[in-house]
Order: sequence, then C-alpha cells, then structure tokens
Amino acid sequence: MKRLSVLDAMFLAGETRESMMHVGGLLPFTPPPDQSPRFLRELADEIRGSTEVHPPWNLRLRTPSLLRNPLQAWVEDEDFDIDYHVRRSALPSPGDERELGILVSRLHSVQMDFHRPPWEVHIIEGLAGGRWALYFKVHHALIDGYTAMRMLAASLSEDPADRDTPMFYARPPRTRTARTEGDEAHVPTLAALLDAARHEAGAVREVGRAVANVVRAARSGDRSLVLPLQAPHSILNRRISRNRRFATAQYPIERLRRIARAGGGTLNDVALALCGAALRQLLSDLGELPDQPLTAMLPVNIRPKDDPGGGNAVGAILASLATDLDDPRARLEAITASTQRAKEQLAGMSRSAILQYSALLTAPLGFQLVPGAAGRVRPAFNVVVSNVPGPERPLYFRGSRLDGVYPLSIPFHGVGLNITLNGYVDTLNFGFIGCRDVLPHMQRLAVYSADALDELERAVG
Amino acid sequence: MKRLSVLDAMFLAGETRESMMHVGGLLPFTPPPDQSPRFLRELADEIRGSTEVHPPWNLRLRTPSLLRNPLQAWVEDEDFDIDYHVRRSALPSPGDERELGILVSRLHSVQMDFHRPPWEVHIIEGLAGGRWALYFKVHHALIDGYTAMRMLAASLSEDPADRDTPMFYARPPRTRTARTEGDEAHVPTLAALLDAARHEAGAVREVGRAVANVVRAARSGDRSLVLPLQAPHSILNRRISRNRRFATAQYPIERLRRIARAGGGTLNDVALALCGAALRQLLSDLGELPDQPLTAMLPVNIRPKDDPGGGNAVGAILASLATDLDDPRARLEAITASTQRAKEQLAGMSRSAILQYSALLTAPLGFQLVPGAAGRVRPAFNVVVSNVPGPERPLYFRGSRLDGVYPLSIPFHGVGLNITLNGYVDTLNFGFIGCRDVLPHMQRLAVYSADALDELERAVG
Repeated sequence: MKRLSVLDAMFLAGETRESMMHVGGLLPFTPPPDQSPRFLRELADEIRGSTEVHPPWNLRLRTPSLLRNPLQAWVEDEDFDIDYHVRRSALPSPGDERELGILVSRLHSVQMDFHRPPWEVHIIEGLAGGRWALYFKVHHALIDGYTAMRMLAASLSEDPADRDTPMFYARPPRTRTARTEGDEAHVPTLAALLDAARHEAGAVREVGRAVANVVRAARSGDRSLVLPLQAPHSILNRRISRNRRFATAQYPIERLRRIARAGGGTLNDVALALCGAALRQLLSDLGELPDQPLTAMLPVNIRPKDDPGGGNAVGAILASLATDLDDPRARLEAITASTQRAKEQLAGMSRSAILQYSALLTAPLGFQLVPGAAGRVRPAFNVVVSNVPGPERPLYFRGSRLDGVYPLSIPFHGVGLNITLNGYVDTLNFGFIGCRDVLPHMQRLAVYSADALDELERAVG
Repeated sequence: MKRLSVLDAMFLAGETRESMMHVGGLLPFTPPPDQSPRFLRELADEIRGSTEVHPPWNLRLRTPSLLRNPLQAWVEDEDFDIDYHVRRSALPSPGDERELGILVSRLHSVQMDFHRPPWEVHIIEGLAGGRWALYFKVHHALIDGYTAMRMLAASLSEDPADRDTPMFYARPPRTRTARTEGDEAHVPTLAALLDAARHEAGAVREVGRAVANVVRAARSGDRSLVLPLQAPHSILNRRISRNRRFATAQYPIERLRRIARAGGGTLNDVALALCGAALRQLLSDLGELPDQPLTAMLPVNIRPKDDPGGGNAVGAILASLATDLDDPRARLEAITASTQRAKEQLAGMSRSAILQYSALLTAPLGFQLVPGAAGRVRPAFNVVVSNVPGPERPLYFRGSRLDGVYPLSIPFHGVGLNITLNGYVDTLNFGFIGCRDVLPHMQRLAVYSADALDELERAVG
C-alpha cells in the first residue's frame, strides 16, 4: 500500500466529470515498407499475451468510490486485466490528421475508471499512408504526463532492428523515482510548477509581497511586463464541459530557429508567436477576439539570484501573445520583449520570491483542485503554454519509426485551452488540448499555426 | 417545455455512472457492389450539412446537473450541434464481428452528456467485406429502445434506389405518440412492463395476493412452474460496473422453426434454448454454473381471462433456462414446459392479477431506479430475455441493404445481462448486452449460441 503524495491527492480531489485530471500522449509511427498488414493485430495479441506489469502501472485506488478519502492509497490490482488497458482502435477514411484528432479527442473525453489502474494504451490503425499511432492516457494522480511520456519513450529503441522491446508497463521500475531526482525536478512542467507553488499557496502575506515586487517593477514604466490580472476576458476562460478537442502540429526546429535569428527572440518566442497568431485568427473567426492581448502562463526553469548552489527553480512567467497586433513581425517582437522582461524579472527574484510569485499565478489552477472552488476564481492568464524536452534521437518500436510526440495536458475550469510543446529530434511538436464547448473549431489552431509559420518566414525573411 | 412522464423520470433517477439507462441499436449494412469508397465520408458530410432536427431529437434536459430535479423537463437545445450527435468510427482489422462487438461495447460504456439531447449516431466503417454499420444510442428517459428502433427503421426505405431518405431525427414526428397508442402498448418491452407494473409496485397487499395465487397453483404439484425467488445465486446477479460488452448473433427463423416443429414448443422456446445452452457453456467455462437452473424473466403479451374487450396486457413470466440439463433435447423440453405453464398461469389471471404479478417480478428492477436502493434487492430471476417484433421487409439506406437489427437494452445492478431478440425479415437477431466485469468473455455467448443451434438440429433432426 502506498499513500498518495499531497500533489497527487490534489489531482484526485480536483477530479470531476467535467474537470478530468488525466493527461496523455499521442505517438504516431511509420512502419517499415516490408511490414505485414497483420502487424498491428499480431502486436496487440503479443502484448496482451504477456501478464508482466510493474508499479505504478498495476496500482489502483484503495477506495475508488470515494476519491477524496483522506486515507486514500494505491494498492495492487489483484484482478489486473491487460485487455482492459491495451486496446485497438481505427480511423475512418481518409485517416488524416483531422480524423486522428477527433478519435483522440473522444478517447480523451472519457473519464478514467478508478476501480482499475487508471491508464490505457490504444493502438490506432488506419492512418493515411499505412501509418499507425499509440495514444496513451494516465491519471495525473498516478503519474504526471512528462514522466509518463519519458517512461514510454524509454521503452522504445534506437535500433530499428530491435523487435523485443517490452511495453513500458512491463519494464521493472528504476529504483529512484523520477519526480524527486536531480535535473528532473527542474523540468518546467505544470506539475513541477504546482508542486513548487503548493507550499506557498496559503501564505497570503507572502503572495502580497510577491505582487508588490512585480507592481514595483511595473511602476518603473516597463510596458512589456505582463502583470497578473491584466488578462482580458475571453471565451477561453469559462467553465469547461466534459468534451475535449485535440489537435497537433509539427515543425522543423530549424525553421523556427531561422526566424528566431532573423527576428530576434528565442525558439520559444517563435513558438509562442505561432500560438498567438493561431489564437488571433480563430478568435477572430468566432468574433471573440479581445481588444487586449491574450496572456499565456509559461512554466519556466529559472536560476534565482540568491541560489548559492547554482541550482534552478521552476517558476511561472506571464507573456503577452500579442493577439492585438496584426503584423506578424510586430507580434513576434512584442512577445519577445514580454518574455524577456518577465524572465529578467523572475531571475532578479530570490528563490523564495519565485515560489511566491508562481504560487500567486498558479493559485487559480490550484483552486480548481479544491472541490467547490472550481470555476469561481478568475485566472490571471488566458492560456497555459508549456515547453518540455523530448527524445533527442530517433526512436523505433518493433521496427516502426516514431514520427512525433504530442502531449495532452489538462484544461481547467477557467483555462479551457492548454498548449504543450514537446521536442523530438529536430522537430517541435505542438499538442493543443481544449474543451470542445469552450472553444469551437479548435482544430483550426493547428492549421492556423502552419499559416502563421509561413507568414512569419515571409515577414522576417 | 415538456415535463417528463413518471416512467421517464424514473429512468433518469436511476442513472448513475455504473447503472446507465441508455439503450441502443446496431444496424449493419451491405453497400451495393458499385459503391464508391468515398460513400461513407460523403454520407457523413451530407448528413451533417442538414440542420433539420425534430422533437424529441432536439430536446435536452432543463437542469442537466441535477437529474433528479422534481421540476426536470425537456427543453429545446438552442445550440444543437449535429457534429456532436452524428459521428464516424472505424474497426481495426480484420473488422470481424468480434471487433464490431468491442467497438460498440466501448461506445455503449460511455455515459450520455445530459447538457445535450441525449442521443448519438455512429457511422462505423471497416467491417469485413466492405460492409458498414450504424450504431445509435439514446437515453431511455428521452425515448425507449423499441420506439427508437422503430423510428430509425421507418426512416429507411424499401426501395434500394431511394437515395434521399432523411435521417430519423430529420423526419417530422407523427402527431400521435407511439407509446400510448393502440397495439404498441402491448409490445412486450421492458419499458411497457415497467410502466404497467409501476402502478402496482407500492401495493404490498396486492403483491401478496399475486404471490399467493402463484403458490396456490404451485401446490397443485406443477414442477414446471418457476416460482419467484427460486432463481439460484449466480455471477450474473452482482452489482455492475461502468463497462459493457456487446455481442450479436443472427439465425434464419426457418432453422429455429424446424426445431420448434420437431421438438415441440414455440419459436421463442427454441430461442430461449439457445440462450440457455450458451449460458450453460460460458458459466461452465468460468466454473460458475449453478446447480439449479438459471431463470429468465420474459416480458410477454397476455390475454387476461376477464378482459371483456378482448384486449391484451403486457405481463412478465419466469422461465427456466434448464441450464442444469446436459442433453439439448431435454433442455428444450424443460424450457418449453416451463414457459407453457407460466403462460397458462398468467392467462388464467385477471388483468389486475397480471399487473400485480408483473409488479412483483419487476420490483427489483424498479428498485434500481430508486437512488440508494440499487443493488440492495435480490432479483427474482437471473437474466432478462425480451423478444420484440422488427421490420418484416428488407430495408435500405441510400442503397445499402440492412443486414440485421441488434438491440442493446439495459443491464441493472443485480441483473448484469440482458438478451433482447429482434426479428428482421426472415431472421431472428440476438443482442447480448452485459456488464464486462460481471460476466467475463461475454462475447462467447454468441459463439456458443451458434454451437447450440447446430447441436439442437442434430438432437431433434
């Protein structure tokens, strides 16, 4: 029996039919040209033939009918049923990105069954060109999305000829746990941010001081610094329903880097510019574009000014998405100025101030995890954009080449859209996950981000 | 605004994540040989292109977050979104009956979103041999399964050349409502039975009298008459989970009729014999076959002895499935004797006694519809088997020939398996719907029922 950490318990406490706290990933693969058409069927049979499963993948909740039981714990599932967790699905024709997005959206809209270990893997066939995909889904209380994606990637192989790779759940766990170790504590995920901020969330006086710090900085006349509560009202910031939409985009990092070099700013600034342009276009389509620019909250890895050990901390910055500007180059410049100022601001803080400031910013999300408070606190930002590292070398699963790594994070009441970026070899992968009812036609975000990239290239070229 | 009927309100009150009160149907089609591969895509686009929708298909609940609101009502959905209700899906290869069963099981395991009109239609492609299917799902509080299936069938065409048939929800409703009219009140559905029995459910004295009637009859030494509470304990009669399994079978009515003629009994007795044989085999596989025979509850249409108008009433009988007998012929004979005696018994009752007796039998199901009581009353039977009429002439949808009509009724806490039989032209169609966790390997029921038919033919031939 294993008690839940405080953060894990919070993710469980926040779970409702609408505000579901599971995360996921989509991994499309290209099979080798000589692949048998029966490959996926045989793969599924083979996978289900093995009964080996290791923690945490064999753990279920002790009291699944009472999620908020203070004595909640993980216990081993004595009736572990691999057929329940490993499933097959297929796309309707033509099996394009749109159909894949719709299927994954639907799978992601279904709540976990807490009577079983809360994870599923779907082997999806019927992608155009003979491709296939893995979609996995896991509750954040069991494992966070970044760690899950990392464990999944670790069970792939760098060798195309490797045909024996065991599935991630059949690999014995490493003795150290990822979340508490070394560098990994500094990966700027939403979980790391919430965990860091959690200790500070109740300390109103401290939060007040953090705000005072920021406001003092703002008085110096710096208009690039986005302040908390400056976010405009937008349709993104309503209560969410149970329905999700998912869309993906993938761009060569080199294209983004060229723009960054030519236009100033970082790779991440260019990525934000694509998000900003896509959101500007979609909200315009809907007649819902606010006059003020949308603001994004970004978990970042910051070196505090007072840290003697040279260690890093995960903090949060607010950045303008410059959705009020029509000119792509001006938009990129405004975003770049905004992130730069925000990071300088944070880097000038002590570790403690970083945590307090992050606590202030993430409090509205934290409140979503408190039953009864959900949707009643206005977020200080419109959208969350995370950027997490991914596999740096090409990976294979039974000879099929991994084509991309698309994360699905959590929409909250009040923050109905989450964009998570994930690197893979020489590409940047975008996972747009949102509430279908808060943001109609969400899948256009992917299309518009591609348009935005072309436009930016022309603008800075 | 339209208030709910008492029965409809009961189906809403009984709704939980585990005990879901939606019903469904599966309709496979064979396209004409010259069908374009793009047919289904174009069909979906065309269907979604029309915004015409008529009651009840455009109605949603007034207070979806408070299902049991005494002032609950149906109101028009102002934001009706056809894309939400009409969906595309596909089967993984080889697209056989098993894969179709698994997909429909999963779709049926997802709870309705009561913020919208509670129905969905899925266009499923990828069935072996180029076939496709419609799966629809509707909450019983909006419309019962038999009526929904009838409305769906009415929107198909007897003409293969007809390419303009509007979808069922786009057909203006007939002015009379089906449930209260003429013959249709006498179709022996579970809904008709619950509705008839509802008025009697509270009258303890009356129920006592009905039991006394039956016990008196039993004292005469008739061992074929199955008494209430004679049902053995079985794994079918546990609390159910949220997961469903669905399986189908279809047999030429002529094959069953030949057996009925040779072995005695009715067509329905032969169908029950197939169910009994399949259950005997599956429970034996699982090491869970009770010593005593399983008993089935069957909604039937009975002519009461005292009815001056010669009208019929829907009542319930209990029949033995003779799962204790190894010999197929002896099993059929035992079942035949059991249904014959039960029907004689019921036909000997007054209309009022029929209702009281039905109330007694269905009370445990009725209790499932009362929050808090679910799963705490032991059913007087192990499984529900319904037999409802279906289309008598071949039907087509845009040139595709309808191959069968498979109903999905409701598993309850304590009755984790429902078998509904539906006629279609010269075939009898079986829809087995059960709780996946109560009855593992449920899809073997379909296979075993086919074995049982072969075996019976040999036994009586």
